[in-house]
Amino acid sequence: MATAGKVIKCKAAVAWEAGKPLSIEEVEVAPPQAMEVRVKILYTALCHTDVYFWEAKGQTPVFPRILGHEAGGIVESVGEGVTELVPGDHVLPVFTGECKDCAHCKSEESNLCDLLRINVDRGVMIGDGQSRFTINGKEIFHFVGTSTFSEYTVIHVGCLAKINPEAPLDKVCVLSCGISTGLGATLNVAKPKKGSTVAIFGLGAVGLAAMEGAKMAGASRIIGVDLNPEKYEQAKKFGCTDFVNPKDHTKPVQEVLVEMTNGGVDRAVECTGNVNAMISAFECVHDGWGVAVLVGVPHKEAVFKTHPMNFLNERTLKGTFFGNYKPRTDLPEVVEMYMRKELDLEKFITHSVPFSQINTAFDLMLKGEGLRCVMRMDE
Amino acid sequence: MATAGKVIKCKAAVAWEAGKPLSIEEVEVAPPQAMEVRVKILYTALCHTDVYFWEAKGQTPVFPRILGHEAGGIVESVGEGVTELVPGDHVLPVFTGECKDCAHCKSEESNLCDLLRINVDRGVMIGDGQSRFTINGKEIFHFVGTSTFSEYTVIHVGCLAKINPEAPLDKVCVLSCGISTGLGATLNVAKPKKGSTVAIFGLGAVGLAAMEGAKMAGASRIIGVDLNPEKYEQAKKFGCTDFVNPKDHTKPVQEVLVEMTNGGVDRAVECTGNVNAMISAFECVHDGWGVAVLVGVPHKEAVFKTHPMNFLNERTLKGTFFGNYKPRTDLPEVVEMYMRKELDLEKFITHSVPFSQINTAFDLMLKGEGLRCVMRMDE
Ligand SMILES: NC(=O)c1ccc[n+]([C@@H]2O[C@H](COP(=O)([O-])OP(=O)(O)OC[C@H]3O[C@@H](n4cnc5c(N)ncnc54)[C@H](O)[C@@H]3O)[C@@H](O)[C@H]2O)c1
Ligand SMILES: NC(=O)c1ccc[n+]([C@@H]2O[C@H](COP(=O)([O-])OP(=O)(O)OC[C@H]3O[C@@H](n4cnc5c(N)ncnc54)[C@H](O)[C@@H]3O)[C@@H](O)[C@H]2O)c1
Ligand SMILES: [Zn+2]
Ligand SMILES: [Zn+2]
Ligand SMILES: [Zn+2]
Ligand SMILES: [Zn+2]
Repeated sequence: MATAGKVIKCKAAVAWEAGKPLSIEEVEVAPPQAMEVRVKILYTALCHTDVYFWEAKGQTPVFPRILGHEAGGIVESVGEGVTELVPGDHVLPVFTGECKDCAHCKSEESNLCDLLRINVDRGVMIGDGQSRFTINGKEIFHFVGTSTFSEYTVIHVGCLAKINPEAPLDKVCVLSCGISTGLGATLNVAKPKKGSTVAIFGLGAVGLAAMEGAKMAGASRIIGVDLNPEKYEQAKKFGCTDFVNPKDHTKPVQEVLVEMTNGGVDRAVECTGNVNAMISAFECVHDGWGVAVLVGVPHKEAVFKTHPMNFLNERTLKGTFFGNYKPRTDLPEVVEMYMRKELDLEKFITHSVPFSQINTAFDLMLKGEGLRCVMRMDE
Repeated sequence: MATAGKVIKCKAAVAWEAGKPLSIEEVEVAPPQAMEVRVKILYTALCHTDVYFWEAKGQTPVFPRILGHEAGGIVESVGEGVTELVPGDHVLPVFTGECKDCAHCKSEESNLCDLLRINVDRGVMIGDGQSRFTINGKEIFHFVGTSTFSEYTVIHVGCLAKINPEAPLDKVCVLSCGISTGLGATLNVAKPKKGSTVAIFGLGAVGLAAMEGAKMAGASRIIGVDLNPEKYEQAKKFGCTDFVNPKDHTKPVQEVLVEMTNGGVDRAVECTGNVNAMISAFECVHDGWGVAVLVGVPHKEAVFKTHPMNFLNERTLKGTFFGNYKPRTDLPEVVEMYMRKELDLEKFITHSVPFSQINTAFDLMLKGEGLRCVMRMDE
């Protein structure tokens, strides 16, 4: 390509300060270095994690920064040593990588790559500790190794899943974070059996993706739990058969669920980040065989507390990160599930705006409206 | 048999009061009623749980009572409706039963039978709410449905495992509680892979049986953790490769283990009953794939506390009861493991006394000497 090896000037949404609207700027994107890939982003969606680090409450503030991690794009050029990707390949960037070489990558069970595990405080590339973004020579920081709120971005090859080029990037881009996280939490970790009862705590995009997984696995009863009663209507489209609002009950919600289900649910998936919901999700599973899975990211000071007899009575508690999917190995197959129409992504995409209106996407999320807003880079 | 349908007079060790030496008395044992079996006990061992309910500290005191639950015997006669056992069958009584009819018995994963799950406060048969033991007409209570400190006892058919008649009852009797509990915790629940690293917390009989399971599964490094340094010598016979005494370190023992193992052990099995050991066992497993299994019975007020991120980083915590073995379905096969010499029981049996010296067995356990003391009923 004509641009390979050269600095590319393009548009990016820069967060200059915590909580201030992003501004679209012309940035310089340096060529990819060893093991790096420069990607032309076509579509990017907004996820809570972007908002969280933009607000930077209780976080190490890293500004100015280019946020964004849910996206789909096409390889523009590759750096030295990159053999698995060539210009023109369709890719999904992922905030957590897969080096294929560490103990985690070599384990069948783990996706917590030692080298490329998510690092929210780092604003530079791991190869040389530098940023690839500048504005008039001033360094702009990266975010979780992806920084997809830019027409071009540089990403470590281990954080890119090469997918079927036939897959529509404006749809499958949402698989690069939240939807895969929820789906995988159910399909790969909770593994409900056909005909079983599943409780989903938290009916945001992640919880609804977990619910979609429960429906795909053949669960016959799917109980949604959320503090917001408005979440029920939407959840019905994802297979929700019962809804419980903890606020409607004086007793702990786990007791309500145990009574409703004659002893407890077979599986529970927690997608709230609230430690009380985590405890409820664990304590509402049936003794003997119940499994609870934690997905939500807890507060730094949160403490999980329960009576150890709840474990002794043969309950299992697990946590998962990115739905236990190994990004490079497993994500292409999730895209194929969509291609085979086994997985419906359209219902997660409630809004779409041109990239120039990125602050509208932030507003929608802050108001809790919709699930995913996809931004089109070419407009 | 000549005794069938009649009251049998025989010797039993009666606990008249909490903490007072047992006294060998002549008791009347009524014939088995519907779904019950009268068993001639040949060998019985002493387990901590007997001592625990004999001391009755913080327990509902149920006296006078015939304790005992680790034993081997032969069916003398059967009550109405019993079709699976006939006089002469060799059996192991188990404190928790298997009705084969409830949701738990029908589940592949659970052994917490709804009907015959352990009940430590009940001193009578579940069929008619009566005891089958009397002394001059005065009722003597049962213990966990087994009461094996008697030459004859009456047991629900669901609490009896029919085993290979060739198996020596003086050895396999120890499979009826603690040894199966520890062994199954490792083999059925923790499931370490060949070559993995396993930590065992608590090196009593249960922990050493869990260790034996780790060795059988091919673990290459087995770290024993105990507050008592004297436990190491004995543990070496069970495959212990490293020993850690939490008292020898200023930092929490989980940190010591994580450092020793470059990130954490693959599996941990807790066999102490102490909630701090439970927390350490969980927090010392490797992120990404580590599994911790709780076996010890905790204090009623104990609270298990940890940071939820420890789960999110893909650790699993489970508990087990009787090593997840279904007594009737699975125990006969554990006996076969012994018969095939895959499992060594001899090293667990450190003492043997005639039944008349049962108080010696209590003394040994109170002093913490040895692992199992088998009592011979015919002497
Ligand atoms: N583990 C991972 O890899 C990963 C990846 C992405 C997101 N996450 C986490 O997943 C969680 C959910 O993400 P999301 O985007 O769907 O968030 P969201 O804010 O859209 O949804 C969360 C829902 O939980 C509900 N909720 C909050 N507290 C509750 C409680 N105590 N009981 C019941 N419901 C409660 C809220 O009303 C809301 O509807 C977040 O914690 C996020 O950080 C984890
Ligand atoms: N779940 C079940 O089905 C089942 C069945 C039988 C026994 N148990 C339980 O298993 C546990 C072990 O039984 P046992 O007969 O082997 O007991 P035991 O008393 O012989 O052994 C326990 C060992 O743990 C050690 N220990 C205590 N606190 C510790 C700590 N904080 N850190 C490290 N080591 C510690 C002691 O020094 C001792 O050596 C008990 O709690 C018992 O109630 C459970
Ligand atoms: Zn790796
Ligand atoms: Zn995200
Ligand atoms: Zn049952
Ligand atoms: Zn016992």
